[in-house]
Amino acid sequence: MSPIRNAAIIFNEPLDKGYPEPGKTLVYDTDRTIDLENVPLHGGLLVKVLYLSNDPYLRQKMTKPSTGKWAEPVFELNEPIANFGVGRVLRSEDSGYKAGDHVSGFFNFEEYVVLPASAIPHIMLQKLEDQGVPWSVYLGALGMPAMTAYFGYKEYVKVKPGKTIWITTGAGAVGSVLIQLAKIDGLRVIASAGSDEKVAFMKELGADVAFNYKTTNIDEFLHKEGPIDIYWDHVGRESLDIALAHINKYGQIIIAGAISGYNHGYTYPFKNIFNIDKRTLTVNGFGVLDPELAEHWGESFMREIPALFTSGQLKFREEKMPFEKTGEAIARVQKGENYGKSVLVVAEE
Amino acid sequence: MSPIRNAAIIFNEPLDKGYPEPGKTLVYDTDRTIDLENVPLHGGLLVKVLYLSNDPYLRQKMTKPSTGKWAEPVFELNEPIANFGVGRVLRSEDSGYKAGDHVSGFFNFEEYVVLPASAIPHIMLQKLEDQGVPWSVYLGALGMPAMTAYFGYKEYVKVKPGKTIWITTGAGAVGSVLIQLAKIDGLRVIASAGSDEKVAFMKELGADVAFNYKTTNIDEFLHKEGPIDIYWDHVGRESLDIALAHINKYGQIIIAGAISGYNHGYTYPFKNIFNIDKRTLTVNGFGVLDPELAEHWGESFMREIPALFTSGQLKFREEKMPFEKTGEAIARVQKGENYGKSVLVVAEE
Repeated sequence: MSPIRNAAIIFNEPLDKGYPEPGKTLVYDTDRTIDLENVPLHGGLLVKVLYLSNDPYLRQKMTKPSTGKWAEPVFELNEPIANFGVGRVLRSEDSGYKAGDHVSGFFNFEEYVVLPASAIPHIMLQKLEDQGVPWSVYLGALGMPAMTAYFGYKEYVKVKPGKTIWITTGAGAVGSVLIQLAKIDGLRVIASAGSDEKVAFMKELGADVAFNYKTTNIDEFLHKEGPIDIYWDHVGRESLDIALAHINKYGQIIIAGAISGYNHGYTYPFKNIFNIDKRTLTVNGFGVLDPELAEHWGESFMREIPALFTSGQLKFREEKMPFEKTGEAIARVQKGENYGKSVLVVAEE
Repeated sequence: MSPIRNAAIIFNEPLDKGYPEPGKTLVYDTDRTIDLENVPLHGGLLVKVLYLSNDPYLRQKMTKPSTGKWAEPVFELNEPIANFGVGRVLRSEDSGYKAGDHVSGFFNFEEYVVLPASAIPHIMLQKLEDQGVPWSVYLGALGMPAMTAYFGYKEYVKVKPGKTIWITTGAGAVGSVLIQLAKIDGLRVIASAGSDEKVAFMKELGADVAFNYKTTNIDEFLHKEGPIDIYWDHVGRESLDIALAHINKYGQIIIAGAISGYNHGYTYPFKNIFNIDKRTLTVNGFGVLDPELAEHWGESFMREIPALFTSGQLKFREEKMPFEKTGEAIARVQKGENYGKSVLVVAEE
């Protein structure tokens, strides 16, 4: 068989501040090809990519490379970007996998990925059992976003029924799971997002109070509906500062993202950082890939969450967009225009 | 006996930003009198004040009163300021105390204080046993500053030998105790303060590295001497932001004061708050008066610290100033010009 198209999403131009621009920051390249029968696998696998995950954190890797001790990973210029995805094995030189297996892992944004044996230990490759749910669900309700919500909630939130938690980006992939976890435990949930439609969705998920941050004076709102005991931050900057103003003594802040910082820079004239001391607050940041979290909570996640999801008790919403629209889909997520978990459809089996 | 002088330090004028001005913010008033034999005690005590504590946090109570849910206590205008002190009982209507007893508690800045029975539950009044140390020591090495260091260190710092802690205001009452506690546990200590004399003192206390923040480029310094694992903050603002830039993954920040914020306002264009998330940091604020801390660590404090102090293993330095110079002494502490624990001498027995 002769080479066929292997389209990819290429990192074309780094940007410091502002939203990624489709066709400029990221480019859909259809000129690349692959010979599926003959491409060397170096002891690994050839995978046909089905779905790729579009997460807020990707924006952090679209800046210019930095140097020195604290340099953070960025995408390589003129190469495909990468993130968590699901695919089907086409060929395998690894005895642990065979053609037809479904797998998840960190994949390049390409239609077909070669995963040499040397790469496999680094990409969180996992064989997926067919649990009767669509494969894209392993990127959302049974994947990283739900793990982020579950691991962080279990590890850091000191749950006491009746306490008030403010969950930002509550209609998103992580926030929507969090709202439901918090309600199961009897917390009072204040949820925020950027449209009235999302506000309605968050109420459907069980939020006691929900508001559209684009049309609400948050400070006044929290004077009325607060104070809060727990703040779950996906936003940063002004949102974090307002939370610091309206949080009770012994409150908790969990920082799990900063969509505002990714796009507008992290520097912000915070007024209320010293409330951490004045009010005896605890602030925790975390990343879902921290091995300790999986060790503490991985088993109970697998015991609880798939069952809740397949029984319909845990609601989860996906927004699918075609692979070639990755640039647009990524900009949508950064601007908060998406509605539920954003999944890129590379191929339907 | 006819009334005698009962001089006081009066809160004369609130100030928003800037350092308190002796004679303006605080005034030494010698016109007040008291009749020691006949002043009614309302079931309580009359105490001759010997020493009063001059602590950084006092600055927070010299602002204008605020209103609303989050209003914080300020000193009452045209009334004496108050803080922790030591005195000797002159008269008592409370069977728990008798003339001649030494006591500590929150006292007005007056030569003689009347403590009615109704006030006693609110001022942390305590009878002091004579342990053969000067009474002023109960304001420092055996008092609040040492408790702040000990309680916060024990409660929050995850100690592992070889980890690096940066202690700010390391020549001060709290910082100097902290340096010694950290060295006992085998931590590597970086300590900072505002003069070369203090730098020498911090090295005497055992700091591995010490720097004068007024003459050092802290960012460059920490590039060389860092990174740090733990940051103990008494300063806030730029210092906290630099610490956030040089702290390792899984690091800890303990916020126990913000002398820079007290005098220059808390608003600061922080660049590095999101490192809390990126580096999986834990940030804790606390106050020494939190009853949980005394419950957890009060006993072990009393078991360990007085013994270390009386045996000379725990070094502690006092700077005594006369009562009438309270305004000057308070300004010195706010500007970081003091050298060790600042104590006001109201009377020597």
